[in-house]
Amino acid sequence: MKLKLKHVKIKTGGMVSFLDEKDAQAMDLKQGERLNISKGNKFVVTIVDITTSNAIDKKGSIGLSEEAFKKLGLKEKSVVELSLVDKPMSLHYIKKKLRGEKLKDQEIYEIVKDIVDGIYSDIEITYFVSACYIHEMDMKETVSLTNAIINTGDILKMKRYPIIDKHCIGGVPGNRTTMIVVPILSALGYTMPKTSARSITSPAGTADTMEVLCPVSFDIDKIKNIVEKTNGCIVWGGAVNMAPADDRIIRVEHPVSLDPTGQLLASIMAKKKSVSATHLLIDIPYGKGAKIEDHRKAESLKKKFELISRKLDMKTMVVLTDGTQPVGNGIGPALEARDVMWVFERDKRAPFDLEKKGLEMAARLIELTKKASYKDALAVCEELLESGEAGEQFKKIIKAQGGKIQNSKQIKLGRFKKEIPAYRGGTVTVFENKKLARIARIAGAPASKGSGIYLHKKVGDSIEKTDTVMTIYSENKDKLKYAFEFYEKMGGIKIN
Amino acid sequence: MKLKLKHVKIKTGGMVSFLDEKDAQAMDLKQGERLNISKGNKFVVTIVDITTSNAIDKKGSIGLSEEAFKKLGLKEKSVVELSLVDKPMSLHYIKKKLRGEKLKDQEIYEIVKDIVDGIYSDIEITYFVSACYIHEMDMKETVSLTNAIINTGDILKMKRYPIIDKHCIGGVPGNRTTMIVVPILSALGYTMPKTSARSITSPAGTADTMEVLCPVSFDIDKIKNIVEKTNGCIVWGGAVNMAPADDRIIRVEHPVSLDPTGQLLASIMAKKKSVSATHLLIDIPYGKGAKIEDHRKAESLKKKFELISRKLDMKTMVVLTDGTQPVGNGIGPALEARDVMWVFERDKRAPFDLEKKGLEMAARLIELTKKASYKDALAVCEELLESGEAGEQFKKIIKAQGGKIQNSKQIKLGRFKKEIPAYRGGTVTVFENKKLARIARIAGAPASKGSGIYLHKKVGDSIEKTDTVMTIYSENKDKLKYAFEFYEKMGGIKIN
Repeated sequence: MKLKLKHVKIKTGGMVSFLDEKDAQAMDLKQGERLNISKGNKFVVTIVDITTSNAIDKKGSIGLSEEAFKKLGLKEKSVVELSLVDKPMSLHYIKKKLRGEKLKDQEIYEIVKDIVDGIYSDIEITYFVSACYIHEMDMKETVSLTNAIINTGDILKMKRYPIIDKHCIGGVPGNRTTMIVVPILSALGYTMPKTSARSITSPAGTADTMEVLCPVSFDIDKIKNIVEKTNGCIVWGGAVNMAPADDRIIRVEHPVSLDPTGQLLASIMAKKKSVSATHLLIDIPYGKGAKIEDHRKAESLKKKFELISRKLDMKTMVVLTDGTQPVGNGIGPALEARDVMWVFERDKRAPFDLEKKGLEMAARLIELTKKASYKDALAVCEELLESGEAGEQFKKIIKAQGGKIQNSKQIKLGRFKKEIPAYRGGTVTVFENKKLARIARIAGAPASKGSGIYLHKKVGDSIEKTDTVMTIYSENKDKLKYAFEFYEKMGGIKIN
Repeated sequence: MKLKLKHVKIKTGGMVSFLDEKDAQAMDLKQGERLNISKGNKFVVTIVDITTSNAIDKKGSIGLSEEAFKKLGLKEKSVVELSLVDKPMSLHYIKKKLRGEKLKDQEIYEIVKDIVDGIYSDIEITYFVSACYIHEMDMKETVSLTNAIINTGDILKMKRYPIIDKHCIGGVPGNRTTMIVVPILSALGYTMPKTSARSITSPAGTADTMEVLCPVSFDIDKIKNIVEKTNGCIVWGGAVNMAPADDRIIRVEHPVSLDPTGQLLASIMAKKKSVSATHLLIDIPYGKGAKIEDHRKAESLKKKFELISRKLDMKTMVVLTDGTQPVGNGIGPALEARDVMWVFERDKRAPFDLEKKGLEMAARLIELTKKASYKDALAVCEELLESGEAGEQFKKIIKAQGGKIQNSKQIKLGRFKKEIPAYRGGTVTVFENKKLARIARIAGAPASKGSGIYLHKKVGDSIEKTDTVMTIYSENKDKLKYAFEFYEKMGGIKIN
């Protein structure tokens, strides 16, 4: 059957074609079946979405989603040939996993390949994720999944050794240690091509925070250029085609907040392997209010990371850290970027906990490469920070990424602010991660960079009842009000 | 936030809104989150689909899917208010089932209610289905699911008793016993408001076949009218809002051909309960080439139907029948309708197996109501058919449904046909259900009513090598050729 091409400007996350129900009936096509759309040697395999009316103008046209239209690369109104395509073989492997059987290396590769090629619907990917959630992948399968995610995407290759990376499992606001570690290590000559995430549910990811200072979206060649120049970078991982399967898997996990351990491990390790990392530090913050509250669970995850690292031939150190309160004082992209700048500027307002954690992680990574003992490494890192060299290196990286901001005064905070007094005097005993993150988000972070909160104290500090314990910043008066109302109602800070 | 309404003419199967990524960012909205869209007292809760470009024209507009636009009932370009809605509570129950826990009656009801209200995405429904597939529902959960599916849809209520129904699990081409049973029982004064399905993967469903003779799409009041007049009807179940949850569940099962037993039972029983059936006959064809090949599996399914029927207070008889070859000689809507007509017309070409099975099922249903013994009932049914009374009743039903066809000569078959000779003489030993169904579909059935195949023999019949064993009919020359080529390559008939 031949139909006229129509560009349906919707991003579906995969290859989708929209067909009028009469045309579908004539072809005996069902919702969710696969259709090859071709002209000459150009083709795209799509999942069919049957529609009653004229999203596609009329009977006789076939609509293509943003992704499919781009992949096919033809003009609108081109006449294309349609043909039915069998279900991909890999669907059988998904059914196999649903039945509780183990998957072989090649079977997992084919599933991931088909996910990346966009020929799976969200429904089909969801079956894969739920099967892996209920019948948890063993270590062999997890390694296969990791390799499949790596090999279906681009890989950053550099003729350098060692290549350093770090990862934090998240859940603690602030905590921008990456932005301390990369300048220190790259100043010392270590190669650290760091790709970071944007926030998903937090008030800021490292990429959002770095973006306050400079651009963070680059292609793989540009990243290579930057690292050749400065030894390090802090860029957004989402702008490159590394481990692309991961995004589509996460897309279906998000609605029910699933996070099967196998997929979590594979997702993290694949991203590290995709930048060819040889030495990796993983930070697992734990404790009350953290992502992982229980020490035993943190230990168990640590062991899994160590095991999979051995299987993937990566030198990995896992550290369990305090996750019971935010690290640093700022929460939100600009406020967190300012904390980092203050550390490098040796400003007296620099948060001591962030500085200390950043230095320790840098030293642990050096220890991991066996170039120095932890104690010696720590001394070197402290010296580098104190002398201003690390700060110079940070500015060099910002410049290499095309940024103009060179000091903390250039960072703009939200126009509106509200200072929150302690109301009672005593000692701060609790800063609740989740509630504080929520307040910062309601105020507008991370989309509005200058929004967020600034904590004037840390747990254990004493406070007078008229002292300001927290300032909320926002770009928007209403949002500031909502954020304050949320705090009034739900709290988030305890003083005793 | 306020935006302008735009009608996105795509049927998504649920309530979906399309939002420009900049607007989504400003509202801190993620793909798959829920947005309430309102103006005055009109509102609709939608799942957000974030799009890069102008399916929605531009930033500042919000697109609504066909279903959501209709539900909201406002004009295009209306200015609507948006607000974020929390995830439905019932998502927690889906996660509970994913973890392997049992669900309570009320929890299942809430899940099904939210499915029917369209506030679940396909992804979320898929998690529910896969959880129920892997952690199979027990009988208590299955009963809850059945009741939930019934109570979230319309119910046909009639002041009559008994109300008769039948069901066949399918998998055998032809097999149009419903069209024999309904006229016989309704002629005898039994009430049989039969709703049937269209074909999903077969060459014809009962609704497709009945549609050759008369319309089959009616609302619930019209169905009541017809049944008040004639005691019986044969209509399409999809045109009424009975058991609507079922369609959405089946929609996500189809891509991986999943069919969790609990859902199968619930789906069937809910449809029967929705017409207020009191007495039910279930036909499980089994044997080589049938949906269920194994006798023990058929027995096990029978027991489950019996058990759930007791729990739902329905008098049910389950019969295991021969599923190894098609029932009747025609395959495809018109060819099957002609077989049925021939039975009522006492034509010598009437397929004996179809007639016999139809009579037996009618008699079994009478036995089930305890009005007569099976033997006596069978004699009454035979007499009714022989006398022409059943045929008159069938014509009355066709008329009541608005049909004009009153005899087999009025039924049009495909314009093009190809007679297939036996090639070798001997005895027909095998007619393969799946391959014959495939040939009929390739020829154009069920969309093209006159397409399909006619078997000139049954298994066990002797045949000369020059005899025609099968005729393929089609409305389209190419399709006829493809169907014949498939047969040449794949076979489907064995003669020894």
